[in-house]
Amino acid sequence: MISRLHDPASRGFASDNNSGIHPDVLAALVTANEGHQPAYGEDAYTERLQHVFRDHFGARAHVYPVLTGTGANVVALQAMSEPWGAVICAESAHVNTDECGAPERIAHVKLLPVPTPDGKLTPALIARHARGRGDVHRAQPTVVTITQPTELGTLYTPQEIADICAFAHERDMAVYLDGARLAHAAAALDVPLRALTTDAGVDVLSFGGTKNGLLLGEALVVLNPDAVRGTEFLRKAATQLASKMRFVSAQFIALMESGAWLANARHANAMASRLAVAAGELPGVRIVRPVESNAVFAVLPEEAAARLRKRHPFYVWDEGTGEVRWMCTFDTTPDDVDAFVAALAEELAAVATVAAVSAVTEAAGEPAADRTDTGTVAR
Amino acid sequence: MISRLHDPASRGFASDNNSGIHPDVLAALVTANEGHQPAYGEDAYTERLQHVFRDHFGARAHVYPVLTGTGANVVALQAMSEPWGAVICAESAHVNTDECGAPERIAHVKLLPVPTPDGKLTPALIARHARGRGDVHRAQPTVVTITQPTELGTLYTPQEIADICAFAHERDMAVYLDGARLAHAAAALDVPLRALTTDAGVDVLSFGGTKNGLLLGEALVVLNPDAVRGTEFLRKAATQLASKMRFVSAQFIALMESGAWLANARHANAMASRLAVAAGELPGVRIVRPVESNAVFAVLPEEAAARLRKRHPFYVWDEGTGEVRWMCTFDTTPDDVDAFVAALAEELAAVATVAAVSAVTEAAGEPAADRTDTGTVAR
Amino acid sequence: MISRLHDPASRGFASDNNSGIHPDVLAALVTANEGHQPAYGEDAYTERLQHVFRDHFGARAHVYPVLTGTGANVVALQAMSEPWGAVICAESAHVNTDECGAPERIAHVKLLPVPTPDGKLTPALIARHARGRGDVHRAQPTVVTITQPTELGTLYTPQEIADICAFAHERDMAVYLDGARLAHAAAALDVPLRALTTDAGVDVLSFGGTKNGLLLGEALVVLNPDAVRGTEFLRKAATQLASKMRFVSAQFIALMESGAWLANARHANAMASRLAVAAGELPGVRIVRPVESNAVFAVLPEEAAARLRKRHPFYVWDEGTGEVRWMCTFDTTPDDVDAFVAALAEELAAVATVAAVSAVTEAAGEPAADRTDTGTVAR
Amino acid sequence: MISRLHDPASRGFASDNNSGIHPDVLAALVTANEGHQPAYGEDAYTERLQHVFRDHFGARAHVYPVLTGTGANVVALQAMSEPWGAVICAESAHVNTDECGAPERIAHVKLLPVPTPDGKLTPALIARHARGRGDVHRAQPTVVTITQPTELGTLYTPQEIADICAFAHERDMAVYLDGARLAHAAAALDVPLRALTTDAGVDVLSFGGTKNGLLLGEALVVLNPDAVRGTEFLRKAATQLASKMRFVSAQFIALMESGAWLANARHANAMASRLAVAAGELPGVRIVRPVESNAVFAVLPEEAAARLRKRHPFYVWDEGTGEVRWMCTFDTTPDDVDAFVAALAEELAAVATVAAVSAVTEAAGEPAADRTDTGTVAR
Repeated sequence: MISRLHDPASRGFASDNNSGIHPDVLAALVTANEGHQPAYGEDAYTERLQHVFRDHFGARAHVYPVLTGTGANVVALQAMSEPWGAVICAESAHVNTDECGAPERIAHVKLLPVPTPDGKLTPALIARHARGRGDVHRAQPTVVTITQPTELGTLYTPQEIADICAFAHERDMAVYLDGARLAHAAAALDVPLRALTTDAGVDVLSFGGTKNGLLLGEALVVLNPDAVRGTEFLRKAATQLASKMRFVSAQFIALMESGAWLANARHANAMASRLAVAAGELPGVRIVRPVESNAVFAVLPEEAAARLRKRHPFYVWDEGTGEVRWMCTFDTTPDDVDAFVAALAEELAAVATVAAVSAVTEAAGEPAADRTDTGTVAR
Repeated sequence: MISRLHDPASRGFASDNNSGIHPDVLAALVTANEGHQPAYGEDAYTERLQHVFRDHFGARAHVYPVLTGTGANVVALQAMSEPWGAVICAESAHVNTDECGAPERIAHVKLLPVPTPDGKLTPALIARHARGRGDVHRAQPTVVTITQPTELGTLYTPQEIADICAFAHERDMAVYLDGARLAHAAAALDVPLRALTTDAGVDVLSFGGTKNGLLLGEALVVLNPDAVRGTEFLRKAATQLASKMRFVSAQFIALMESGAWLANARHANAMASRLAVAAGELPGVRIVRPVESNAVFAVLPEEAAARLRKRHPFYVWDEGTGEVRWMCTFDTTPDDVDAFVAALAEELAAVATVAAVSAVTEAAGEPAADRTDTGTVAR
Repeated sequence: MISRLHDPASRGFASDNNSGIHPDVLAALVTANEGHQPAYGEDAYTERLQHVFRDHFGARAHVYPVLTGTGANVVALQAMSEPWGAVICAESAHVNTDECGAPERIAHVKLLPVPTPDGKLTPALIARHARGRGDVHRAQPTVVTITQPTELGTLYTPQEIADICAFAHERDMAVYLDGARLAHAAAALDVPLRALTTDAGVDVLSFGGTKNGLLLGEALVVLNPDAVRGTEFLRKAATQLASKMRFVSAQFIALMESGAWLANARHANAMASRLAVAAGELPGVRIVRPVESNAVFAVLPEEAAARLRKRHPFYVWDEGTGEVRWMCTFDTTPDDVDAFVAALAEELAAVATVAAVSAVTEAAGEPAADRTDTGTVAR
Repeated sequence: MISRLHDPASRGFASDNNSGIHPDVLAALVTANEGHQPAYGEDAYTERLQHVFRDHFGARAHVYPVLTGTGANVVALQAMSEPWGAVICAESAHVNTDECGAPERIAHVKLLPVPTPDGKLTPALIARHARGRGDVHRAQPTVVTITQPTELGTLYTPQEIADICAFAHERDMAVYLDGARLAHAAAALDVPLRALTTDAGVDVLSFGGTKNGLLLGEALVVLNPDAVRGTEFLRKAATQLASKMRFVSAQFIALMESGAWLANARHANAMASRLAVAAGELPGVRIVRPVESNAVFAVLPEEAAARLRKRHPFYVWDEGTGEVRWMCTFDTTPDDVDAFVAALAEELAAVATVAAVSAVTEAAGEPAADRTDTGTVAR
């Protein structure tokens, strides 16, 4: 038996990637264990998973279990792209900002990022790059990718997704939806998964498991088989083919069949609302984006943020503006939220006191404390 | 609770990737669960893992947990190579035959494969490609990679590895050891891991977990920090950075601390010996390679192989010669071996009978049964 | 003798790539011909070229003749980048818009494009992407590239370049200057080449030959040898190593030694000024960007542009706004300009007449002519 | 006017890349000069070139002028391959040995090299790698490439090429012929170009110009349009799209229309025969490969080779065996050959004398001269 090296009662607001494994998912690992099963996806659990996903995404859906969100994205983008293709995305998209260039280096696609106010593409924003078809000098824009919910916690309505798909399809472009937190979007909008994907015209999507209770696992889901080529080869070549795939698939079966996918996401969203409401009432704290899923973006006095981060780590989202991100997860408790807000209130008060003293001190000719480092960008 | 979809008592000889999770490893997932831990390797388990690996590989060792064997290989090869580099390998190496071109496509290295009789490189074989330094027309051979044990189940002695490392280093080449089954080599040779790696002059290696009892996880181990650049960035860009890395690291800690890494490997090797001895005594079966680790390579009547594969799946290694591969694992039991050999004996007998009848029938003018498809190549 | 298939007296305003070979350059091909010379750059002309370029760019300069502008860019960007690097550029940069993704696909770099009003980067615009150093999730911004003059015909002052270089160097980034028309910038600003490059702190640049009188040839010039690695290997691997390099180098020697590089560029710039002044005086024509080198950007009635393009082909730069681009070259004559402006005046008049008639006709219930296709994007 | 920096009367045997421009080709540059022509292949000369190539290769042929042989190869291989494809080639193929990994790095294909005795593939040799279709672990072998004449100067008969094509097509593989010296093969075999290509079933080929009298230029010729995808985009993305393409095309028109392509090749072949016969008669010289085109491979005393190379540079082909390569070109004269053979005879004699003296000296206790460096590998 290995020793426990961490405090199981400690939970923070830095990232949903910091949470652990949901009990139903852990139990599924036990169920799928023992005996031999064919490797690389020929097992009974992966076969069963096809049915589970077709129940949610329709009869044409085909699911390819993969290992990481970046993996799902690069396999999908390459399977959807010609070797001379380009992918239109929001500048803030995870594929553009947080994958160390994997789409370009691994999938060999060019990205065409568009600045957006809120992380959401629109037909008008896509139009900026959707040109030059047939021009050999120009990487051909053939894929549009959107993230639902966006990296900024905002949501597309089903109609907005449908409008983007229609716009893209009219221009011979396919649509990939990065759904690392798609469950949270479905929960927040109170619609079935297919309303945001199959019914809206999405061609290919990822459905995230890791941020919602899996040990590890993402599902690459092809809704339109005509939109991809060579997916199985590309999954292998992108290092994303699990040998003991039964354990990835069994986790997803557990998540979906138990309904935990939705309950977990609803809970995380609810905790984010609770946090936003409570924190937003504190003087000096401003909630700067709509809280539509499980993320809260806030601006608060820099010194208070720095002090609070030492007690409860979280990310500074924008070093320029000082905007911070607080993420809630399936295992965040109301007490966690309340304790965090209480700590926030304490630090705001402490900083106010320091500021008052400092003002007096400065007036007396002494230097104020150095500005605290604001840390790294969030993910 | 999800339903069990497989027979936990059924174990075969197709691949060590078909086995499940060792109990100690499964327990470690429970231990590492609950609460929050920083993602992407900043957790306490990954920190602890550094010490565990240094105990085995020396004080300079640095371990990077990754997700798949192909992932370990591509991250290592790119970290060790210039963008104009080439990697000398055996033609039968996994990087050359079983990774769908990932080293070329993901790591952007050129491979220089050398045919070998037994999967093993030698200084003389390496010399064939170790030339042309400074010639701009030639991808520069800067890395040599060996697999221990090889894909053909053969072993390098510590001295053979040391000779290869010395030869490579004299020519400004670094050495990468693909150790997907390195534990089995150490067990078979009865030497510590460092005798095959650190002490022999290996620069970088992978240490496999998946084939030896992990749910999923491989360890990329850098022994010579001067031999790599940008490993952390390249791991991310190669889609091999786990978000909830604590669970990969905890598995490895359990495997190493419990001694299961060695016990599992010893057991698998012993089962392979048992199988080779028993099968080799059957008329019509020829064990065609030295059984030095957990793989048995045999030639038997094609029809017998085809019939046996329907009862106990395994891979045809070489469609030309009909050579087959039988793999033993940490959970193979002596009874499994004995039952398999009994089934083999039955099919050999059945085929002999059919052949006799067929000879009579053919003499009477009727066609023999169609040749059975020999299936796919092994891994 | 082959037949002439074109009218040698016909010259247009579509692109400086449409012009031919300057007489001095053609003569150099004859001089360098006959006899044998070592291939791949070991010839006497390439050796001489080093001295020619050092006269202009300083004693540390090293020139690598290449074949195309895209080739120069991808070799330079890869030589300057780590395999996990990113390159900050203007969104309108040739590397981003006109190379079919070659930087990403061939050089394996990620681009970080920034929208700009006038094609010019500034420290403030660069700062938008110059962050996240050490963050493994983020492709590391290690190169800044600027184009001088920009693709929009605008110029950086020597001080602006120096400011960008200082800003970049302070953040451990190197600077690449795409100088496909650098001669035109030096001519327009009336400064030596080194004022815009070596003296301003540029690390690596391309110096264009093809658009300024060469049959074919670009010069990749490394000013700071510490900013690159493996340039010669990467030139070969990028398919940019000419076998009979003597003929590329001899052209450049002719261009530089005769002073044609400067005279050609001055002449092209002067023709652009003449065109801008004359066309700008016509009613309905608006010169929409500063005419600082050999390009003129204008907006005119769409129907007039369409009719004029049938007589004198040129590119529509922006299909949305109808902005067109007119390029002048070393062989553009004053008569060419005057004839073009006369034709423009005719078409403007014709369109005005049609419009008047159309207005009458439409009032009478008949449809106006269909909108004419605005053609393709310019380069 | 630039100064001549070389001796136009000096010609050697190092490489056909060391020769200059054929007079007819140079004249074509003058003809195509003056006036403006659309860039990037929209010119009248490139249009005409289509007809010229269709006369030789059949009505379905489409020619894409490119800049270098490596460029032709990488564009062709990528256009013919899926992103998970592999290319079977001889181990000695230029794509494998002399392109600094460009096929892997630029075209993103995996090579599957096969050792051969004489540079020639056969169906049996191809079969070694033509397996594993549908196996996701294996880069899919979808292209076979042969070089005609091979890098070792040997020739495929039309029937041999037809057999390879039939074998490949039966296995859903396409055939690419690297014809950097295809003219020499047609001349040697005294067959039309189409006998070696179109009529034999080749899908795509390159037809070399640079080694046969062009300043620079190779022709990528697609015979089977179903065998390629995106050729024009890939040519641009591989940096192989010439802006002033008229000058590449005009050179090829001159070469083909004048018959120089054949006369040049015949002459070079004849000079190689003359050289092989004369040199082969000298004691101590052994011609070690069939002289079937314009290359002569010989073994001679190492010291004699070293001394001769100082007077007439040529390449050591194999540092291990001391085998050297002598190349003849379109401008090699009989006097050049005779002078070279005379010099060879002198050095053989000198070495014989030295050896005799050395034997005496060594007997007297003094050391012999150091072994001379054997130089670099040939191309």
